[in-house]
Amino acid sequence: MQLDDLDTPSLILDLDGLDGNLDRYHGYFRQHGIGLRPHIKTHKCLAVAHRQLQCGSIGITCQKLGEAEVMLAGGAGGDVLIPYNIVGAAKLSRLAALARQTRVTVAADSEFTVRGLGQAARTGGAPIGVVIEVDCGRTGVGSAAAAVALGQLIQSQPGLELRGIMAMPTPPDIRPRLQEVLAAFDRAGLPHPIVSGGSTPAALTAHEIPELTEFRAGEYCVGGLAHLRRGTHTVAQCALRVLMTVVSRPTPGRAIVDGGSKALSASLYSDASGTCMGHVVEYPEARFVGASEEHGHLDVSACPEPPPIGTRVQVIPVHPCPCVNEHDEIVAIKGSRIEAIWPVHARGCSR
Amino acid sequence: MQLDDLDTPSLILDLDGLDGNLDRYHGYFRQHGIGLRPHIKTHKCLAVAHRQLQCGSIGITCQKLGEAEVMLAGGAGGDVLIPYNIVGAAKLSRLAALARQTRVTVAADSEFTVRGLGQAARTGGAPIGVVIEVDCGRTGVGSAAAAVALGQLIQSQPGLELRGIMAMPTPPDIRPRLQEVLAAFDRAGLPHPIVSGGSTPAALTAHEIPELTEFRAGEYCVGGLAHLRRGTHTVAQCALRVLMTVVSRPTPGRAIVDGGSKALSASLYSDASGTCMGHVVEYPEARFVGASEEHGHLDVSACPEPPPIGTRVQVIPVHPCPCVNEHDEIVAIKGSRIEAIWPVHARGCSR
Repeated sequence: MQLDDLDTPSLILDLDGLDGNLDRYHGYFRQHGIGLRPHIKTHKCLAVAHRQLQCGSIGITCQKLGEAEVMLAGGAGGDVLIPYNIVGAAKLSRLAALARQTRVTVAADSEFTVRGLGQAARTGGAPIGVVIEVDCGRTGVGSAAAAVALGQLIQSQPGLELRGIMAMPTPPDIRPRLQEVLAAFDRAGLPHPIVSGGSTPAALTAHEIPELTEFRAGEYCVGGLAHLRRGTHTVAQCALRVLMTVVSRPTPGRAIVDGGSKALSASLYSDASGTCMGHVVEYPEARFVGASEEHGHLDVSACPEPPPIGTRVQVIPVHPCPCVNEHDEIVAIKGSRIEAIWPVHARGCSR
Repeated sequence: MQLDDLDTPSLILDLDGLDGNLDRYHGYFRQHGIGLRPHIKTHKCLAVAHRQLQCGSIGITCQKLGEAEVMLAGGAGGDVLIPYNIVGAAKLSRLAALARQTRVTVAADSEFTVRGLGQAARTGGAPIGVVIEVDCGRTGVGSAAAAVALGQLIQSQPGLELRGIMAMPTPPDIRPRLQEVLAAFDRAGLPHPIVSGGSTPAALTAHEIPELTEFRAGEYCVGGLAHLRRGTHTVAQCALRVLMTVVSRPTPGRAIVDGGSKALSASLYSDASGTCMGHVVEYPEARFVGASEEHGHLDVSACPEPPPIGTRVQVIPVHPCPCVNEHDEIVAIKGSRIEAIWPVHARGCSR
């Protein structure tokens, strides 16, 4: 089956681009002795997770329990980090069940979370590892003293194992904050076998924080418009695209494609030149200026030869993770050949 | 089963709010003699579509063929308008099949689209109705002369039935443009039994365009943040919400909930007070200032008593249509009681 046989909009993944990114990033982390623990929330797909494990990943990262359950069921959940505060009886019961089946580490930033985790470990009968999140703008504890106090609480809870710290994101300038917490841990005699950094934009500078033992990255494997603009990924390395068809040319400067926010997600990218929703590979002068659910709006006024109705184009999304969540399938391609159609196994697993 | 038994994040739909909106809007259109043809892309759910049909809808609107197939299979596709340029052999074949099973009207704004539709009608052996879209900023023809030329082309194609015109959106100031096209149609002897307006923001002023014979609206039935701010829907009338739990309180002014862009969609609402992603029903002073995929960021600094960790809140999304597309189920509630769990039957049908 050929790419030309595929109806639009369809989510496609170029395997050469994917494999090149895996070589590149896994090579970097191997070189620097930092464990790469891919975040599966980007692709949500067992086929990609297994490829990442074959490249030497130390385990996987899942943002939600449901993703971990899917990955474990599919043979990719041998060592799972869930960098999330797990709250509520229903989830704690599922976490306890997960911990009976595989090695699990979760994040915590409050006494509330830690007490729930302790209860789950004791009633579940299996140890649960915990890393303390250091606040870098989203969740996390705000001071080294608070991290130590929470670490001591974790140590006091039978069934919980304090495994260290994590932060999100971890650009190099975060290092002093992590060092301060680690020094306080050392003074208090608290263990920190895991020091986990994260985010693709900070991936290739991870070696500037030598304290990191492992790293969580998701988008590195497929890129996206933000990475293209940042220069970490070329167009060819932005391996995840949405195949679309031009369905209307109402004015000389306007082209409408059959993929909108339901095919790309509603994510926007903004810079000095304005806001856009994707990069059109075949028409780099086109601007993907906006979208409704099923219509993508291209400004093609700068294109030397704007695309006529019926033209098929590949669009690199702003943000691959939510884009994938809109789709049930990923069509894996090599050049113009379709290699496989993979289910998005963990789509919609937000609990 | 009670709402309290539901894990988070979950998409919930308050049936009293839904039914109140159906009464209100269907009553308005009945009063003004305009047919309401609900756009099922908002809820994507047969249960809601059947409720809308019971309220006297003249048929349904589907943005994509796949949605129409799902609605027809579920008994709600007796008369379908697809206000979309259907392009490409795969879709035209499906359209022809649909036309053999039910009454179908589609939009066109180009000779390219019309010739494809004609071919489909002839090879499919069933008539396909066509309305010409008048450009109001997205797709559509740009002049009355172009509309007439396209109408004549449609008339010349065996198997196609010219059924009139449509536009999107149709606030009152669009009226002169429609009148101009209709006058040109009359002069050319072209029929226009359908004059279709659309969009919920323009719904309650539809009577100011007496030429309209029918109206497409989707969000009217559940509201959303934009409608709340516009004043067409109260908080109670914003019937679709995402139930979330506060999972972190890293600082006094910051609360993090377990629903982000994967629960709400990445849609933003912007006004003079800034950008936000939802309205927190129980904490109206909170601002839903941003989100990553699984984390919603609330600024709770203005709340007299900010929500502690573990608090469950209902969040009205900015835009219900893409929000629904993130979920597999809609939990129908009455007050605190769960009445049903409905599949989002047409989720992901973007082809």
